[in-house]
Amino acid sequence: MNVADRVDDFIPRLESAAGATETALDALLAPAGLEGEISRPARLLEAMRYATLGGGKRLRPFLVIEAARLFGVTGDGPLRTACALEMIHCYSLVHDDLPAMDDDDLRRGRPTAHKAFDEATAILAGDGLLTYAFDVLADPATHADPAVRAALVLALARAAGLGGMVGGQALDLAAETAGRPLTQDEILTLQAMKTGALLRFAVDAGAILGKADAAKARALSRYGSALGAAFQVADDILDAAGDTAALGKRAGKDAERGKATLVGLLGLDAARARRDSLVEEAIAALDETGLGAATGTLKEAARFVAWRNN
Amino acid sequence: MNVADRVDDFIPRLESAAGATETALDALLAPAGLEGEISRPARLLEAMRYATLGGGKRLRPFLVIEAARLFGVTGDGPLRTACALEMIHCYSLVHDDLPAMDDDDLRRGRPTAHKAFDEATAILAGDGLLTYAFDVLADPATHADPAVRAALVLALARAAGLGGMVGGQALDLAAETAGRPLTQDEILTLQAMKTGALLRFAVDAGAILGKADAAKARALSRYGSALGAAFQVADDILDAAGDTAALGKRAGKDAERGKATLVGLLGLDAARARRDSLVEEAIAALDETGLGAATGTLKEAARFVAWRNN
Repeated sequence: MNVADRVDDFIPRLESAAGATETALDALLAPAGLEGEISRPARLLEAMRYATLGGGKRLRPFLVIEAARLFGVTGDGPLRTACALEMIHCYSLVHDDLPAMDDDDLRRGRPTAHKAFDEATAILAGDGLLTYAFDVLADPATHADPAVRAALVLALARAAGLGGMVGGQALDLAAETAGRPLTQDEILTLQAMKTGALLRFAVDAGAILGKADAAKARALSRYGSALGAAFQVADDILDAAGDTAALGKRAGKDAERGKATLVGLLGLDAARARRDSLVEEAIAALDETGLGAATGTLKEAARFVAWRNN
Repeated sequence: MNVADRVDDFIPRLESAAGATETALDALLAPAGLEGEISRPARLLEAMRYATLGGGKRLRPFLVIEAARLFGVTGDGPLRTACALEMIHCYSLVHDDLPAMDDDDLRRGRPTAHKAFDEATAILAGDGLLTYAFDVLADPATHADPAVRAALVLALARAAGLGGMVGGQALDLAAETAGRPLTQDEILTLQAMKTGALLRFAVDAGAILGKADAAKARALSRYGSALGAAFQVADDILDAAGDTAALGKRAGKDAERGKATLVGLLGLDAARARRDSLVEEAIAALDETGLGAATGTLKEAARFVAWRNN
C-alpha cells in the first residue's frame, strides 16, 4: 500500500459533508411547500423526514461534494445533488425493509419506517422521496445551466432504475428463490446494479456539475465503479465476519437468508484480496484523472470504504 | 351548453394518441437497455410492461399530445412526454392496488400487478416506472433544448410528489381512519392532489414543449385544473350511480369504504351541477388562450371526461 499520498482531512470532510447534507435535507423537507405544490400532508412529510434525517455516514453525499470540488464546484449545486442522491438511497432502504421485501424491523437501531408509521405510509414516503429527488435536481437552484440539470436527472434515473438499483434489488430477490447459487458474474452484476450504480453516480455527478472533459469524467467513473465494488465486497466480508458494529446493521443476515455473496462463493481470503485490489484500482483511476494531489481525499475514501474495522 | 364549436375528431384523436402511446411504451420497455444501464432483469421488466401496456383510454397522453399540438409541436417530444406521464399514472395504480393500500385484486378486468406477479415485484415495478418517467423526460430525444427537458422534469416531479399525487394518496388513506367526514375544502384539496395534479401537468407539458407565452400557459393550466376537477366529480358520480362499465372499475367502492366524495357530501344533483359548471369553466379557459378553433378537440375532451355515460 502506498501511504505517500495519504491525507488526514478525510474524516473532517466526511463529517462536514454529513452535517451540511443533514441541514439541507431538513430544509428541503420543511412543511412549507414549493411553487406548484398544493400542500404537504403532515404525516407523509413526517415519514419522509424520519426516513431521511438523523442517520448514516452520508457517504454518497460526501462523494458528490468531493468529486465536484475536484473541478472547483462548491456550494448549493453539489449539496442539492447530494441531497437528491441521498433521497434515492433512503427511499430504497424504506422500500427494501418492507414486509414484502426484506421484512426488516430495525434500521440503524431504530424501527424501520413501516414499523414507526405503517406500511402504506412507508410505501408512499418512498415514492415521495424518489419523486422529490428529481424535483431537486431539475430546480434552477441546483445549477444555472439547464443542460447540467437535465444531465444530472438522466444519470440519476439511469443509475437508480430498471437497469440499475431497482433492477439490482429485483435480481437479489430472484436469487433467493432461484434454487441454485449465483455465479460470480451474476453476483458482480447484481452488486454493480444494486449498490454500485448509485455510488458511481455520486462521482459522475461531480463531473457533470464541473463540466469535466470526457477523459477526466471517464477516469472518475472508473474510480466510482471500483469504489462501489470495494464497498460491496467489504460489506460481504463484514457480514460474514459478524462485525455488526462496523456494518451498521445486523451481521450474519446474508448467510441466514442464503443471499449470494462473494465471500460465500470465493471464501474470506479471496474476497479480501479482491477488495484490496479494487482499492488499488480506484486509486489508479484517480491518478489517471491527472488532477494530482487534489484527489487525495477521494483516495482516502476508497481505503475507508474497503477497510472499515477489518 | 354551447354546441356551436363541437368537433367530431375527438374520438379518432383519442384513439390515435392511445395507439401511438402503446407503441412507444412498448419500445421504451424493450429488453435492450439504454446507455449506462447494466441489464434489464426479465421478470421486473415483464411486470413493468404488464402494468403499463394493453389498457386504458390513455387520456393523459392524449392531453399532452393535443396541448402540444396547439403550439405546433408534434412527434417524438409530446409522445415521449405522454409516455413518461403514463408511466407515473400506471406506477401509482400498481402501488395503490397493493394489499397495504387499497388491496385490490382486479384492475381493468385483469389481476392487479401484485396478484399477477408478487408483492415485492409490484413494489419494484412501480419504483422502476416512476424512475423511468424522469429518464424519458431528461433524455435529449424528448427535446433538443435542455431547458425544456428540465422544466418538464420539474413540473412532473412537483405534480406527482409529496405536494401532488403522492400527497393526495396519503390524504385519502388518512381520511379513511380520520373518524370524521372530510369537509368540502378537504375533499377538493385531496382530489386536486390525487388526480388533478397529473391531469393539469398533461396540458402544462404541452405548453412547456411549445414554449407557450405565460398568458397562454396560465389559461391552459386553468383548463387542466377544471378538467381534473370535472374528471374527479364525474368519477364520484359514476361510482355512486353504480355504473361499473363507464367507470372501468367496480362501482360502489367509495361508499363501501367510507371514502370521502363530493356526492356523499353534496348529494347527486349538486355534484352534477358542479360537474357541469366545471366543464363550462374548462371551455372558457380554452377560449382565454386566444387559440380559437384549434382548441375544439380539447373542449370536446372536457365534455367527454365529465359526461361519460350519464
